[in-house]
Amino acid sequence: MKNYYELDTESVMDYVNSKVDFFPKDSKFECSEIGDGNLNLVFRIKDTNNGKSLIVKQSLPYVRAAGEDWPLDIGRGEIESRILDLEYKLTDGLVPRVYLYDGDMCCMIMEDLYDYKIMRYGLIERETYPNFVEQISDFMVKTLLLTSDVVMEHKEKKDLVKNFINPELCEITEDLVYTEPFNTGARNHMEENLVDFHRKHIVDDPVLAMEAARLKFDFMNNAQALLHGDLHTGSIFVNQDHTRVIDPEFAFYGPIAYDIGALVANLIMSYISAFYGTEHPERKEDFCNWMLKTIKDTVDVTKSKFLSEWDDAVTDLMAKKAGFKEYWTRDVFVNTAGVSGCEMIRRTVGFAHVKDLDAMENDEARYKAKTTNLLMAKELIINRTDYIDGQGYLDLIAKYCQ
Amino acid sequence: MKNYYELDTESVMDYVNSKVDFFPKDSKFECSEIGDGNLNLVFRIKDTNNGKSLIVKQSLPYVRAAGEDWPLDIGRGEIESRILDLEYKLTDGLVPRVYLYDGDMCCMIMEDLYDYKIMRYGLIERETYPNFVEQISDFMVKTLLLTSDVVMEHKEKKDLVKNFINPELCEITEDLVYTEPFNTGARNHMEENLVDFHRKHIVDDPVLAMEAARLKFDFMNNAQALLHGDLHTGSIFVNQDHTRVIDPEFAFYGPIAYDIGALVANLIMSYISAFYGTEHPERKEDFCNWMLKTIKDTVDVTKSKFLSEWDDAVTDLMAKKAGFKEYWTRDVFVNTAGVSGCEMIRRTVGFAHVKDLDAMENDEARYKAKTTNLLMAKELIINRTDYIDGQGYLDLIAKYCQ
Repeated sequence: MKNYYELDTESVMDYVNSKVDFFPKDSKFECSEIGDGNLNLVFRIKDTNNGKSLIVKQSLPYVRAAGEDWPLDIGRGEIESRILDLEYKLTDGLVPRVYLYDGDMCCMIMEDLYDYKIMRYGLIERETYPNFVEQISDFMVKTLLLTSDVVMEHKEKKDLVKNFINPELCEITEDLVYTEPFNTGARNHMEENLVDFHRKHIVDDPVLAMEAARLKFDFMNNAQALLHGDLHTGSIFVNQDHTRVIDPEFAFYGPIAYDIGALVANLIMSYISAFYGTEHPERKEDFCNWMLKTIKDTVDVTKSKFLSEWDDAVTDLMAKKAGFKEYWTRDVFVNTAGVSGCEMIRRTVGFAHVKDLDAMENDEARYKAKTTNLLMAKELIINRTDYIDGQGYLDLIAKYCQ
Repeated sequence: MKNYYELDTESVMDYVNSKVDFFPKDSKFECSEIGDGNLNLVFRIKDTNNGKSLIVKQSLPYVRAAGEDWPLDIGRGEIESRILDLEYKLTDGLVPRVYLYDGDMCCMIMEDLYDYKIMRYGLIERETYPNFVEQISDFMVKTLLLTSDVVMEHKEKKDLVKNFINPELCEITEDLVYTEPFNTGARNHMEENLVDFHRKHIVDDPVLAMEAARLKFDFMNNAQALLHGDLHTGSIFVNQDHTRVIDPEFAFYGPIAYDIGALVANLIMSYISAFYGTEHPERKEDFCNWMLKTIKDTVDVTKSKFLSEWDDAVTDLMAKKAGFKEYWTRDVFVNTAGVSGCEMIRRTVGFAHVKDLDAMENDEARYKAKTTNLLMAKELIINRTDYIDGQGYLDLIAKYCQ
């Protein structure tokens, strides 16, 4: 780390000009630190003369949200830049373009998606996005199906597996998603009035624990496709026309269900927060209806694209055998339900919550939303074989959200 | 490859003396090439003055059985020497000791198991081995359970996954075990009178093809434990006291069922060849009875050692949840049955047969043995959830071998 130093809003401008030929000589810079994730510094640099801008994302050697006591491999940005390059090609531009990765400074200089908004914050404002399902399903099918053994030459796929082994970031998921929320203590935190509910309904349920353990080992062992690894609504930029996926630093070869499940879970939690929440009452009905349709379509459109893309893309002779694609797709969506449940639980009682639920102002509504979220999550894990299409999710929501 | 040359029975002696200090100066050497595998040269060098001996195993840059048209990564011996070191430690000596690995010459200099016999040839002579089950089950439980995520620290396990990614050797298995035997052509070969039987009962069965495809993708994606990767009776040295496992060059992180299934399949094929064969009639009954017990015990003892070792060895908090070890073990043995079926089919109609069946002298008996083998294999693949203990295998054998 001899050439590494932490950038700030002053030093970053000289740094950028020394690395990329992007801004004209007479630029008038404006710079701000806009990172609100847990792991990195993120600077936006803009030339106010012409409006051109870019992003500098620098890895810190510790988890930002936890402080220097939680160290983290600083080279993880390299995985991120490599996967962004790959996903840019696979998806025809559904991720930001990377201009440069600097291994000494652990910095990525990349496209600024200045006219986009982080989807989670848009959803909290009850905004809707007409093209989201079409585009996010494209992203998932292209990045997941096309990096799997059913499509890729197997030796090349094994090279990718090797290059994207990501022990430290996977450990975070193994602990925070698949272990701590099913136990007491560790880094879990929750409102006082949820403590007993969590113990009774989550920790003390032996069937739930066993099923969560199965999903954990599937996460660790099933090198099915090159995942984004953290595909929640905070990793998605949207506007009325476009969808772009960011922050793939958790990328590794894992089960396809992990990406789809993380997304579906965050859509469900957005719905629950709107359904019970007292904020924006004037937009509630339209938003809830749109979100129900979005949840249903995210599952059904993604599934139908897997099936339709299959015949064109698949190269493996055994994968082409009659019935295998239906088996494969069903298995993906069964586990998607299970992953959704794990994500919903950990976002309620684990280390990293979601603002959709935490920012609900009314205490009673928030309690109702979080307990409903936990009960639905349990059902999704334990009975995941029942949730293989969008209607299954709508039926579940209709049953619990009353 | 600038310092590589193929050894012969002359040059190998100077080579060994230049590399290891094993033989005294006044040694009187005897050297023979004893390789009968598909992939390597194997020399035994013995000092006739004192009987001390060792083995030199050199990788060839092509598949020996197929000739120079089938090239192969010559560095695979390095994987083999690394895994032998690891397995030696894990199993307290159930594999040969490696004295030296020479990357330039792709040579391993190793312990000579001179008072052992390759198990397959012993079984063909209808020999029995009283300690085999106890020792091979130890080998499997220690190498498999102790390299899995339920026991190992997860980041260290991911390091091993990375270091043992083995694309070329895995491709051989993917093609020869999981693809070609379920199709016509390619490198398949069989007696003329099996061609129609193979097409009708194996190739044209859509359920079998789909289930074989599932097992193929489990083989490719499920990085559960560090496998031997080729654990048939030709990779096992035995005598009346001891069992030692050799030739782990196919090692990689894969499903535990692959190792156990390969072994069980080869035991079953040995039984079938003795049951139908006309050779050694005087030893047939004793041998068949011993082999039935060996098949049953291999499954049951291995399973019960997984379960008993579990509580001592397992470190993962979720793996300790009630019911998980029973789920995990059941899953391993269900897939063991499926793998057994695939191995039995490919050894009958695929590229690499087994001598147990091929060397049967009586044409009618051989036909009966091979067709029975194919039908039992189908049953093991399609209905693999029925074969979770040793008795299941005995019932299957009793039903088909009449």
